[in-house]
Amino acid sequence: MLALRVQHKRLAVQEIPKLKPQGEALVRVLLSGICNTDLEIARGYAGFNGTIGHEFVGIVEKCSEQSLIGKRVVGEINAGCGKCALCLGGDSRHCANRTVLGIVGRDGAHAEFLRLPSRNLVDLPQSISDEQGVFVEPLAAACGILERLSLKSGERVAVIGDGKLGLLCAQVIALQKTSTTLIGKHKNKMRVVAQRGIETLSPAQATKRKRQFDIVVEASGSPTGFALALDLLRPRGTLVLKSTFHDITKIDAARIVVDEITILGSRCGRFKPAIDLLKRGSVDVAHLVSEEYALADGMMAMSRAGRRGVMKVLLRP
Amino acid sequence: MLALRVQHKRLAVQEIPKLKPQGEALVRVLLSGICNTDLEIARGYAGFNGTIGHEFVGIVEKCSEQSLIGKRVVGEINAGCGKCALCLGGDSRHCANRTVLGIVGRDGAHAEFLRLPSRNLVDLPQSISDEQGVFVEPLAAACGILERLSLKSGERVAVIGDGKLGLLCAQVIALQKTSTTLIGKHKNKMRVVAQRGIETLSPAQATKRKRQFDIVVEASGSPTGFALALDLLRPRGTLVLKSTFHDITKIDAARIVVDEITILGSRCGRFKPAIDLLKRGSVDVAHLVSEEYALADGMMAMSRAGRRGVMKVLLRP
Repeated sequence: MLALRVQHKRLAVQEIPKLKPQGEALVRVLLSGICNTDLEIARGYAGFNGTIGHEFVGIVEKCSEQSLIGKRVVGEINAGCGKCALCLGGDSRHCANRTVLGIVGRDGAHAEFLRLPSRNLVDLPQSISDEQGVFVEPLAAACGILERLSLKSGERVAVIGDGKLGLLCAQVIALQKTSTTLIGKHKNKMRVVAQRGIETLSPAQATKRKRQFDIVVEASGSPTGFALALDLLRPRGTLVLKSTFHDITKIDAARIVVDEITILGSRCGRFKPAIDLLKRGSVDVAHLVSEEYALADGMMAMSRAGRRGVMKVLLRP
Repeated sequence: MLALRVQHKRLAVQEIPKLKPQGEALVRVLLSGICNTDLEIARGYAGFNGTIGHEFVGIVEKCSEQSLIGKRVVGEINAGCGKCALCLGGDSRHCANRTVLGIVGRDGAHAEFLRLPSRNLVDLPQSISDEQGVFVEPLAAACGILERLSLKSGERVAVIGDGKLGLLCAQVIALQKTSTTLIGKHKNKMRVVAQRGIETLSPAQATKRKRQFDIVVEASGSPTGFALALDLLRPRGTLVLKSTFHDITKIDAARIVVDEITILGSRCGRFKPAIDLLKRGSVDVAHLVSEEYALADGMMAMSRAGRRGVMKVLLRP
């Protein structure tokens, strides 16, 4: 089978033996999406070697749970050990011995087939297309913010970063009837949310709004985004860290103490809220897709996904 | 009147004209306490010039509120503008235009007299001695943690740093029936809380407890303390930042995101809970006092307060 793999920071589309279920479900991938994390992993982040990719829609081909076979599914990417206190408490997302699809110790989704525990698979409703379904995982991550804090109507929320994650976060947050502002550098990207009535600002414009936001979501992953976030927050405001920073970041810790800021780290989210939003058509993901490639052209797709101005790039096996 | 003043990073005990009330209360200082922040200010932190000191007990000498005159008081150190939304909402501690006793734009407590708005003054009950009363401000800061999160019985809480603030935080937290551990380098300091049944560990011992704490309070103010705190926290644990770091601190932000850590900045606290604890004798402050000096010997007192192993140093005008 074909797979887009990284070995010691070298990326290649390779023909490898077809996966066997080995007690898990075998899924034939219909479509996968390239995430910024894939680009980081290709550069050596997380020290991962193997097939990359963790956003997908597929058909269950083999599975011990007969009812799942033939179903079109998406999949929770964290696979816990199933035995520790966290897993038994239902939180395999933080299991210390977890594997993560295409990120930690488990081959990923940019391939003809992938393997996941059957309990990770979630039926995708017919009304959601494959092209929408690949957004379940990143949209769940955006919805994960609502697992970490409850937004009140009218609260002033800024989202920093107009990448795919920022665009999804801004839409999810605006649905909570907050006063939502997206801060980014690319007018073409920000248009997607501007058309849904969300205010958009450049970073330069945003600096005129110092201390005027109750909540800031950092989704740019850059140290300057972190510093801007602290500038925008009112005293006792909340900073949600959404994107994984891949370096040691310098912060003004005294500012966090003196202004009594709350910082909430937020990573993945549960799939159900994301599927519900897509089913209701409440979030625009169609305009987030820039390009689609055959899996065989995975190298070109990865190169395009890293270009400035390009949004979601899809891969079809 | 005598005052311990800093001018352009130069510290001196000086004879200056006696303060006038200027619409505020004039307080004759009975006793003041040297805080680590005083040492930082003497080194140039906050760019403050004037009389330092913010922990005190005094007698109200002049005041437009007649009922306060002659009263023995302590004082909230933040003086808000009284007009902004924060001040009108009762939170002058975060007013953008506030002055802070001996820290921002207002002469402080290491002097024969100080001036504060009468609304900042709080009557000190007779059962609390002057030597205990000087701890109301730092103890209020420790109690401020409980304004930022509610501790549950049995929760595993680590306090990093065995300075005065760490020793007060550990005692306040242990009163909430948590499983409390103090992590520090000085056995003689940690003895104060060990005698109250609080577990004490060296940093080396603590590193064997990785990911085993629900809450970690960072009260050491050092970057190594910050890193240790992240190591000790379980996924989705809470880090309380208690001491003001005076430099840009490097943090592993990815760790905060992946483990979905909550960080709470915490600075000052309300005085009432601290006064109640001292009245009930629930917190040992007597063993935190190392030495007392006459205000005239303020230079010696500051030098002693900066020595390793020395705890609270008091000044008597």
